[in-house]
Amino acid sequence: MIVELVSVGTELLLGNIVNTNAQFLAEQCALLGLSVYHQVVVGDNEGRLAEVLRMALGRSDVVILGGGLGPTEDDLTKEVCAKVMGLELVEDPHTRKRIEEYLKGGIFKEIPDNNWKQAMIPEGAIVLDNDNGTAPGLIMEKDGKRVILLPGPPKELCPMFLNQVSPYLKKLQPDVIRSQMVKICGMGESQVEDKLLDVIDRQTNPTIATYAKTGEVHLRITARAADEEEAKRLIKPVVKEIRNRFGDFVYSVREDETLEMAVVKLLLKYGLTVTTAESCTGGLLAGRIINVPGASEVFREGFITYSNKAKRKYLEVSKSTLKKYGAVSGQTAREMAAGGVFAADCDACVAVTGIAGPDGATEEKPVGLVYIATYMKKKITVEKYQFKGNREKVREQAVVKALDLLRRSILENYR
Amino acid sequence: MIVELVSVGTELLLGNIVNTNAQFLAEQCALLGLSVYHQVVVGDNEGRLAEVLRMALGRSDVVILGGGLGPTEDDLTKEVCAKVMGLELVEDPHTRKRIEEYLKGGIFKEIPDNNWKQAMIPEGAIVLDNDNGTAPGLIMEKDGKRVILLPGPPKELCPMFLNQVSPYLKKLQPDVIRSQMVKICGMGESQVEDKLLDVIDRQTNPTIATYAKTGEVHLRITARAADEEEAKRLIKPVVKEIRNRFGDFVYSVREDETLEMAVVKLLLKYGLTVTTAESCTGGLLAGRIINVPGASEVFREGFITYSNKAKRKYLEVSKSTLKKYGAVSGQTAREMAAGGVFAADCDACVAVTGIAGPDGATEEKPVGLVYIATYMKKKITVEKYQFKGNREKVREQAVVKALDLLRRSILENYR
Repeated sequence: MIVELVSVGTELLLGNIVNTNAQFLAEQCALLGLSVYHQVVVGDNEGRLAEVLRMALGRSDVVILGGGLGPTEDDLTKEVCAKVMGLELVEDPHTRKRIEEYLKGGIFKEIPDNNWKQAMIPEGAIVLDNDNGTAPGLIMEKDGKRVILLPGPPKELCPMFLNQVSPYLKKLQPDVIRSQMVKICGMGESQVEDKLLDVIDRQTNPTIATYAKTGEVHLRITARAADEEEAKRLIKPVVKEIRNRFGDFVYSVREDETLEMAVVKLLLKYGLTVTTAESCTGGLLAGRIINVPGASEVFREGFITYSNKAKRKYLEVSKSTLKKYGAVSGQTAREMAAGGVFAADCDACVAVTGIAGPDGATEEKPVGLVYIATYMKKKITVEKYQFKGNREKVREQAVVKALDLLRRSILENYR
Repeated sequence: MIVELVSVGTELLLGNIVNTNAQFLAEQCALLGLSVYHQVVVGDNEGRLAEVLRMALGRSDVVILGGGLGPTEDDLTKEVCAKVMGLELVEDPHTRKRIEEYLKGGIFKEIPDNNWKQAMIPEGAIVLDNDNGTAPGLIMEKDGKRVILLPGPPKELCPMFLNQVSPYLKKLQPDVIRSQMVKICGMGESQVEDKLLDVIDRQTNPTIATYAKTGEVHLRITARAADEEEAKRLIKPVVKEIRNRFGDFVYSVREDETLEMAVVKLLLKYGLTVTTAESCTGGLLAGRIINVPGASEVFREGFITYSNKAKRKYLEVSKSTLKKYGAVSGQTAREMAAGGVFAADCDACVAVTGIAGPDGATEEKPVGLVYIATYMKKKITVEKYQFKGNREKVREQAVVKALDLLRRSILENYR
């Protein structure tokens, strides 16, 4: 069953707001096993809206429109849809009564006339009551096609979809769709696909989709099946195969688990405390670790040592190291990591020093050069990176690589 | 001139991500005085993409496509566009060299073969260099129509549009559209609109649009005129009026100046050094200050004191304060701020302590309770906030308020 999503609103065309409705509806349709091939945004314009609807009806079974059901003259989604479907508008006494109840005692002494426009519905349409506004939703059925109209504000659209439209669509679609995430760190997207090309090519159900994030690649394995059990049975061997191929590059198989969560989980598992010693990332690394609820169990204090003086004062990086190798060097990163463990009296430290740019680069040390080091069990690991992009991008990539190095160091030293 | 926006990507159709690119591009087109009547999302599917492009070319002068330029087999935006436009793909040596340079020294020992696909360009196309990835952007011109291809990741698409596409489109459009930003911190969007209602209603050219950001409101004043001079002349009195009404709530009138930039500029102006003492924000505040190029002039070290012990050890918060008032209290925030100045031997400190949640709340201290303090010239200012939202949102809002308190404290003490 093919669904098309049409968002109606000039504010979307002008870029005043982000189209979160489309994302919500698309996600919900995917969960219901419905295919969405097109999403369209069009303004409150009769001709263009009618054309978009006709086209959508031609290529899709269900068209879901959001927006343009308000009480003003601009709002014409319902009128245009009724016209295209060849349905008359008639007043719905039930809806009229609901509007009256919703508005009375509100900001209006008398209900403005234009609100009654919202009580007019296309003949034979299913009315979806709106608990969070005055515009009802509508479902029109004709010639095997279905047109569903929803109010535009997300606080009205989302609950109406979940409570009334989703059960309606479920009946049209017997299959269940389930998906499972595999998250990989330390490899680029094309490298991951290279390693997985035969598996991706072989699969039709489940399918494998790859998503590139900063420093990470996420794989989504999606199965369509008659029931939950069957879907799980289809997904399991594919996940197993991926884990076999990528080993420790896989940091999580949970949709809602971030890299920093995986790191904190490992620290908790081995009963370790960690600190951070940051120069160019200047607190962002600690900030991500502390974003994990309960991070206080593993993280107590961190160092932002942006100046050389601070590196010496808090982390006891030696004057001669700074002089001989410079602040951005493997040697300084090593001493920062070791110094962090001693200063914070904890089990592990991850240190970052680099040139985020745009200033501070030299011939030998270009913008994007970053050294990351971990210290634990008296062992130091140092990695050197050359990142691309602007200051923000360099720092963001450095944070991801630092989290990943910490993760890999824990596995190496404690597993 | 009519522009159509086409976003290509299965992850959009599945609702895995929100289409922020469409919002960004729509907003930019509006700024350039270009009309957007349709936005479309379509998957990485040859037939459907070709159909969408043909339709867009039929009803628009310029089609901007985002996404599907990656190195994998799935990515076929460029191939389909070239086919529809009737252009051959040829290898571009310049782009091949750039890809090589971008990828060498990175995670690859050898550059995977599929990356070279990105060096193929439609004959005669204008190549837009990508400083933040390997996929170049492309502009194709044929029969009075223009097709512009941009890489999907926002960090690649946005700078490429701003630096290369926007100047190109500007030339196609004779009227000049100029806009000026006024950035406000410390007031909500509806409060700002209330205070400005008569001005907004009165204006048609320039227009005033408001945008709500976390803890900030941005006003964009946009004028359409025959030339730059005239546009500036239209904008100037409106900006003056807004500045009169909002005073120090206005932190910048520059598009590219962030709140942290405004703060660093003030610190530089008065020759001050600052440090940070963070509990719940755990480095994010320092991270934002250090995101300003040249921050090393004003920021040398920062404290992440997540545990009570760390607050005592580095900031000399007294044991009795922590016992009597707790870590999340105005008193602790005061002592953190004062302690930071002494420990880092600098001029000013901004301190944050709060309950980011989801754990750690009590009846008297709910999730979202945050105290922020500044210390400078031996004077302490403390503010108490009750933020809404999840852990991430609470921390993000705390960072913005901390930057703003620091800004206001500098103005109060040094201006």
